[in-house]
Amino acid sequence: MNTNILIENAVMELSSDKDHSVFFTSKRNDSPMPDIEQLRMVVELLNKIIFPGYFGESTINPKNLRYYIGVYIDSLKTILEEQIKRGLCFNCSNENKLINYTQIADEKTLAFINCLPEIKRLLRTDIEATFLGDPASKSHGEIIYCYPGIRALTNYRIAHELVKLEIPLIPRIISEMAHSATGIDINPGAQIGEYFAIDHGTGVVIGETCIIGKNVKIYQGVTLGAKSFPLDEQGNPIKGVDRHPIVEDGVVIYSGATILGRVTIGKNSMIGGNVWLTHSVPPDSKILQKKPRENVFFDGGGI
Amino acid sequence: MNTNILIENAVMELSSDKDHSVFFTSKRNDSPMPDIEQLRMVVELLNKIIFPGYFGESTINPKNLRYYIGVYIDSLKTILEEQIKRGLCFNCSNENKLINYTQIADEKTLAFINCLPEIKRLLRTDIEATFLGDPASKSHGEIIYCYPGIRALTNYRIAHELVKLEIPLIPRIISEMAHSATGIDINPGAQIGEYFAIDHGTGVVIGETCIIGKNVKIYQGVTLGAKSFPLDEQGNPIKGVDRHPIVEDGVVIYSGATILGRVTIGKNSMIGGNVWLTHSVPPDSKILQKKPRENVFFDGGGI
Amino acid sequence: MNTNILIENAVMELSSDKDHSVFFTSKRNDSPMPDIEQLRMVVELLNKIIFPGYFGESTINPKNLRYYIGVYIDSLKTILEEQIKRGLCFNCSNENKLINYTQIADEKTLAFINCLPEIKRLLRTDIEATFLGDPASKSHGEIIYCYPGIRALTNYRIAHELVKLEIPLIPRIISEMAHSATGIDINPGAQIGEYFAIDHGTGVVIGETCIIGKNVKIYQGVTLGAKSFPLDEQGNPIKGVDRHPIVEDGVVIYSGATILGRVTIGKNSMIGGNVWLTHSVPPDSKILQKKPRENVFFDGGGI
Amino acid sequence: MNTNILIENAVMELSSDKDHSVFFTSKRNDSPMPDIEQLRMVVELLNKIIFPGYFGESTINPKNLRYYIGVYIDSLKTILEEQIKRGLCFNCSNENKLINYTQIADEKTLAFINCLPEIKRLLRTDIEATFLGDPASKSHGEIIYCYPGIRALTNYRIAHELVKLEIPLIPRIISEMAHSATGIDINPGAQIGEYFAIDHGTGVVIGETCIIGKNVKIYQGVTLGAKSFPLDEQGNPIKGVDRHPIVEDGVVIYSGATILGRVTIGKNSMIGGNVWLTHSVPPDSKILQKKPRENVFFDGGGI
Amino acid sequence: MNTNILIENAVMELSSDKDHSVFFTSKRNDSPMPDIEQLRMVVELLNKIIFPGYFGESTINPKNLRYYIGVYIDSLKTILEEQIKRGLCFNCSNENKLINYTQIADEKTLAFINCLPEIKRLLRTDIEATFLGDPASKSHGEIIYCYPGIRALTNYRIAHELVKLEIPLIPRIISEMAHSATGIDINPGAQIGEYFAIDHGTGVVIGETCIIGKNVKIYQGVTLGAKSFPLDEQGNPIKGVDRHPIVEDGVVIYSGATILGRVTIGKNSMIGGNVWLTHSVPPDSKILQKKPRENVFFDGGGI
Amino acid sequence: MNTNILIENAVMELSSDKDHSVFFTSKRNDSPMPDIEQLRMVVELLNKIIFPGYFGESTINPKNLRYYIGVYIDSLKTILEEQIKRGLCFNCSNENKLINYTQIADEKTLAFINCLPEIKRLLRTDIEATFLGDPASKSHGEIIYCYPGIRALTNYRIAHELVKLEIPLIPRIISEMAHSATGIDINPGAQIGEYFAIDHGTGVVIGETCIIGKNVKIYQGVTLGAKSFPLDEQGNPIKGVDRHPIVEDGVVIYSGATILGRVTIGKNSMIGGNVWLTHSVPPDSKILQKKPRENVFFDGGGI
Repeated sequence: MNTNILIENAVMELSSDKDHSVFFTSKRNDSPMPDIEQLRMVVELLNKIIFPGYFGESTINPKNLRYYIGVYIDSLKTILEEQIKRGLCFNCSNENKLINYTQIADEKTLAFINCLPEIKRLLRTDIEATFLGDPASKSHGEIIYCYPGIRALTNYRIAHELVKLEIPLIPRIISEMAHSATGIDINPGAQIGEYFAIDHGTGVVIGETCIIGKNVKIYQGVTLGAKSFPLDEQGNPIKGVDRHPIVEDGVVIYSGATILGRVTIGKNSMIGGNVWLTHSVPPDSKILQKKPRENVFFDGGGI
Repeated sequence: MNTNILIENAVMELSSDKDHSVFFTSKRNDSPMPDIEQLRMVVELLNKIIFPGYFGESTINPKNLRYYIGVYIDSLKTILEEQIKRGLCFNCSNENKLINYTQIADEKTLAFINCLPEIKRLLRTDIEATFLGDPASKSHGEIIYCYPGIRALTNYRIAHELVKLEIPLIPRIISEMAHSATGIDINPGAQIGEYFAIDHGTGVVIGETCIIGKNVKIYQGVTLGAKSFPLDEQGNPIKGVDRHPIVEDGVVIYSGATILGRVTIGKNSMIGGNVWLTHSVPPDSKILQKKPRENVFFDGGGI
Repeated sequence: MNTNILIENAVMELSSDKDHSVFFTSKRNDSPMPDIEQLRMVVELLNKIIFPGYFGESTINPKNLRYYIGVYIDSLKTILEEQIKRGLCFNCSNENKLINYTQIADEKTLAFINCLPEIKRLLRTDIEATFLGDPASKSHGEIIYCYPGIRALTNYRIAHELVKLEIPLIPRIISEMAHSATGIDINPGAQIGEYFAIDHGTGVVIGETCIIGKNVKIYQGVTLGAKSFPLDEQGNPIKGVDRHPIVEDGVVIYSGATILGRVTIGKNSMIGGNVWLTHSVPPDSKILQKKPRENVFFDGGGI
Repeated sequence: MNTNILIENAVMELSSDKDHSVFFTSKRNDSPMPDIEQLRMVVELLNKIIFPGYFGESTINPKNLRYYIGVYIDSLKTILEEQIKRGLCFNCSNENKLINYTQIADEKTLAFINCLPEIKRLLRTDIEATFLGDPASKSHGEIIYCYPGIRALTNYRIAHELVKLEIPLIPRIISEMAHSATGIDINPGAQIGEYFAIDHGTGVVIGETCIIGKNVKIYQGVTLGAKSFPLDEQGNPIKGVDRHPIVEDGVVIYSGATILGRVTIGKNSMIGGNVWLTHSVPPDSKILQKKPRENVFFDGGGI
Repeated sequence: MNTNILIENAVMELSSDKDHSVFFTSKRNDSPMPDIEQLRMVVELLNKIIFPGYFGESTINPKNLRYYIGVYIDSLKTILEEQIKRGLCFNCSNENKLINYTQIADEKTLAFINCLPEIKRLLRTDIEATFLGDPASKSHGEIIYCYPGIRALTNYRIAHELVKLEIPLIPRIISEMAHSATGIDINPGAQIGEYFAIDHGTGVVIGETCIIGKNVKIYQGVTLGAKSFPLDEQGNPIKGVDRHPIVEDGVVIYSGATILGRVTIGKNSMIGGNVWLTHSVPPDSKILQKKPRENVFFDGGGI
Repeated sequence: MNTNILIENAVMELSSDKDHSVFFTSKRNDSPMPDIEQLRMVVELLNKIIFPGYFGESTINPKNLRYYIGVYIDSLKTILEEQIKRGLCFNCSNENKLINYTQIADEKTLAFINCLPEIKRLLRTDIEATFLGDPASKSHGEIIYCYPGIRALTNYRIAHELVKLEIPLIPRIISEMAHSATGIDINPGAQIGEYFAIDHGTGVVIGETCIIGKNVKIYQGVTLGAKSFPLDEQGNPIKGVDRHPIVEDGVVIYSGATILGRVTIGKNSMIGGNVWLTHSVPPDSKILQKKPRENVFFDGGGI
């Protein structure tokens, strides 16, 4: 077939009517998608605000700090408000055209700014917990500047406040940024107490309805997931059902453990690595995988 | 030792003859390496073509869609063709100088463009499967825009078509992009049916000779790998031997399960998390890890 | 509350005195933080120096190689020296103001450049081991250009030399870059012999005091971690205690295995996937997870 | 004086109340300034639309041209409309808040797009005139691609249409872009007929109320300016009075000539270089500077 | 000749010893050249400081202005200080190694910041004069935002303060930036009174020892230059001799006039366009070019 | 009219057949236009090669100079060769398809590289002449780094070599870059001897067939142009006729002088400012404008 005709056909098929209903809802034409680069800048600004001296300009000092914080928050206000508005419009339907999304976005952005000191306080507890839990860490500064666990928790604690403000889509994008960079996937709906530490972290999954207490520590590859979920009459999953674990204060979960369902891991329990656990355990439990078979025949030699 | 002499020596040693045979084959001088930034742009263009309204310009609408698709495909044609040519030259030897790689690259690029509507159709089944399998997802749009599973599958389905067109190296680079961004490592040679869903995904590995049916769902940390592989007389691994699992329709595999070798997981089976499985199982199997030891002595307290 | 007042309050609280002691130590004001973008460029330069023809300019050939290596090393000298100086200052206290960090950074940078040929030699053994261990790899070139295992090992071998030169913070940042891009987290303090191969790699964790022999191969999700660590009288972890495994020559460890504590995995052993192992095993051991339970009742249907 | 105090004082003085009335009118807070980078992109898009094959993508050909033109015009619509709106707001007062600037900007942008074919036709006459008037030009293509005269006329003919649509500020910015790049300063209000040629062009000034016929040619350093202008009772210049020359068809003006006031240069006249002319001349005039003094005493030797 | 040999020869010749004395003085190796991009940023910052609401962030308003000014001045301090230090080192000789250029640069930068309110005041008089002198200008805002005369004067008034602080090279670079962008070449050593206006401006030259009074207005192409200058015994020009015109208050000079030598143009004089003037004229003079020859024979028809 | 229809119409008209013959010659589809950004990089590279220590990396010193020159020339070879090839194709017709433009471009690029030492030698004479002719210049370094005259001459001397190698279009683009940045328009075909100085320079025009001797100095606004040119039978200008002035050794031409036609300005002559000269003058001439009229009536007060 002739090149021009082949390309012409591909263009026609890929822009044909049959796809329009899926990719172009009426609202989509009125409001652009949230802008991921702008949201990346939001997270950078928040790092500058929360950890000045680490992520802000190198000349920041106690004398000029308020100028910088003033400018960072002013930028945050402008950029985040626009993205919140886009997030609100992402799910809106045409009937809602009378709603003043600009004003709602303005109010939610201010409410979020109001929470920043509390977010900062929580992250400082997480840094402290990480420092106390890792003999390899050399200083608080190193943890703030390099540790993926703190990076993921920063995005989580930001995104969780946005969830509480009932902002759609934006929290998810922010948590996926951390997931992509760190391999740590915390659903922004999860509730996590202070002094939380994640070490190494790659492969961690924390589900939407998890409730995690204080002083909890988890390692790479830990899953706190759902075992199953109910479907509605059309076979669609019912949203919002509690289906993820409750992890009480002081629990430690070793690498690769999988804990599924609305089970409770009692206070100060220790869950060993590579365990598959689908039931609740009482406080102070110690759970380990069955001992392995040793010196068995195995013909493997590579994957 | 004097600074200038030390540096001079390092330069001499690092540019000495003994490395030339490894790093400079004759072909390398004639054709540049594939350009990773250009391939990143190829993937961006394909996202714009497949998911207009999400990744394309914010002003795209049904009226002007064909202009944009026309331009995106024209750009794709130019950029991808050059990279395919470089990929073809990457493995070529000097004897092949008479081959007209430009013309072959042109033909393969057109053949790939011809497959785009089918790639789009398959991805829409994957989106549907993901939506039905995740109570946390709010809309199809959220899945397209944020879910790492769809991102990895988009790159896989693109790369797999390129493998079928016998284009070297380029598919691997495209799948590594997704691996780096999502932690999901799907070899582009694997065969995967429609309505495939990967949730969370970090740590998933799907090997080169896997065959996966329809309506399969897997979670983070699942390995579908090889147990071993035969070596030739020089001790080099023999390429192309079937060595990875066959997963039949409707199977669900929970997080962290490891399935190795040319085994078959029968239809509608369910494989529990953290399981190590190196043999076939019949349809409708349910396989779980041995129950853990509870309340045993363990002197751990951190990693 | 009025918008301006709310923002004014947030600025005041976020720039108040009470945070200054944490975020602004006196030293911080005198020397800027290490610059992550500059360190990214350091790693790029090192890839160009070690793998010319792959990552350097496309026109590099044996004739002009020495010009390019000369310029790359000259750039490296300038950029790395500045970052090493910043790393040295990161942990310095005010009493140390008399130390000439510029001169120390100059000396350490030269010492590092002196090690480059050895780093290159080691990486070539790793490439060879990866090629022999992966039937899916098509050529050495593909491994250099695309494989995450080699990317992580390049950063590790660079960072490890910097650790040996007692440079703080910088090695950690360089290893975190690879961790973020590949999901492979190798502490730069670990000691790893030649011909080391990591396949797929997502979720691998190798702790600070690990000692790994020659010809070792590990797969994705393997943890070589600590089981516990001693605390000092204030409850802080004691730094530098040997607490991670010793893995002898020729060992293979399958995906998802977790090995914790100062245990020894004897020569040529094979550790199966998803195993949890906290004791030493003799040479030539084969360790597998207990066989799973098959066809048990399980009410799961998704996570 | 102490550094911090000095800086603090400068900040206070430079942000003090007394400047607010000048730099912050109430409208300024509601609508951002026109964005010069966006307007630069508008001009680039217009060059791509008007001269495809020269400034558009290198793959444009008659087969795919309509896709590209479609996308360029769609982008133009979005970007220019926003800038037109900002231009309209630049001069607006608070009483005008009820005016729907978004809708006006939309209408004016469409009206401008409607004029594009005529702008293109006029520029093609200018290219033809330039080609015929310059023995150094090698092809029409060279003139389109390199000649500052055409660059300045492109911006002028765009800006002039915007003036006719009564859009403030934006035309001025567009003509200043050309002025900065070429040294040719054409006020967008001037009226210029077809087949106009400017050679070299640096230092050319064409005033706001000039009327220039067809087939006129001018050289570098020519001024078509005002001799004087009336003031109102407050001593401010009265806007909009005709005060610049009328240049009839077929006139040639050599380099450095200065023609001031509402005078008429009759058809087919030739004005010599470096002439100062403040009165009208009839058709077919030839005007030259008085002959110089030769071999006079002069003690100069440098500037 | 063989390609490699030809290139090798060119490299050898272009890096041979004979050029080293010219291009590498010993000081050059110790301090880098001033960075033109950084100086461009200095000028941008100064525009933001002097004209907030025009060149600053679009969200600046009277409430948050002091935050922004604080940050801009903090950035200015850091960037300009480094460039001033480089400028000081540019001309330094090796004997001066004991001089603490860092401290001198710090002091001069603070002294410059101290002058900013006065620079701002002077520029506001220039804006006022431009507005009153140009019927085509629509508002003060348009003049600040678009007029090349103000752009050139902003750079001049900045550079002139730096000259007064005896900083080498940097003022020249800043005035050349304006020259390149506007065609207006004001030597930063010139002394220019308040309410100065330059219209259009391309080709204006104002020499180093010019003294210009208040309320002076000049047009494009005006030269205020030297007629000659004395040489020393080696034939080198003697630096610093007064050799450019003195232009008294209220003078207007039309386009293209050339005034050379240490002559005085008396108060309120008017100098017509294209005049060549090398002697002083008393106050209230009106000087015009000799009337042109009309209807003479001329065989020209193009340049 | 409906928006979509209006835009559709504009797209149709702007992409209609009638324009194709002008904007799309068959050759255009086969070879892209020269890339102005790449040519900008060529000029930057040449500045680094010719003036190392000024425009090259800040760490260049006599020890590492040859590495940098080697890399710069290698880059130059690659980039310039591609652009020369595009230049050659710009004017080629379809019959010339058999010509191997790649090989011709390779040869011409090497011939150009061979000329670099001579270009460098000539520019050093121009720098010397500028230094001796300007009392305001502080050092040779300042002239290299800041003076627009040297910038324009660098581009001219590069472009002139390319003209001698019969490369189309590229020289013109390079000289227009300097024209845009400096206001100095030197046709690359002009022949200019050593020790040439241009002061200030805005508005200088030097025509294609000018011949300028040694030790010539010209000021801003000087035109060395054509008075007229012969037309062929179709009314097109005949290319390549000698039509611009010959300026002999030692001549000085003051600002704003216009010299037109194939006239000869004899050795060591001095041409005063603002003169219009269309005939030859003997050696040692001094030519001045007629004295102005003083204290005449003039009713001007602004332009």
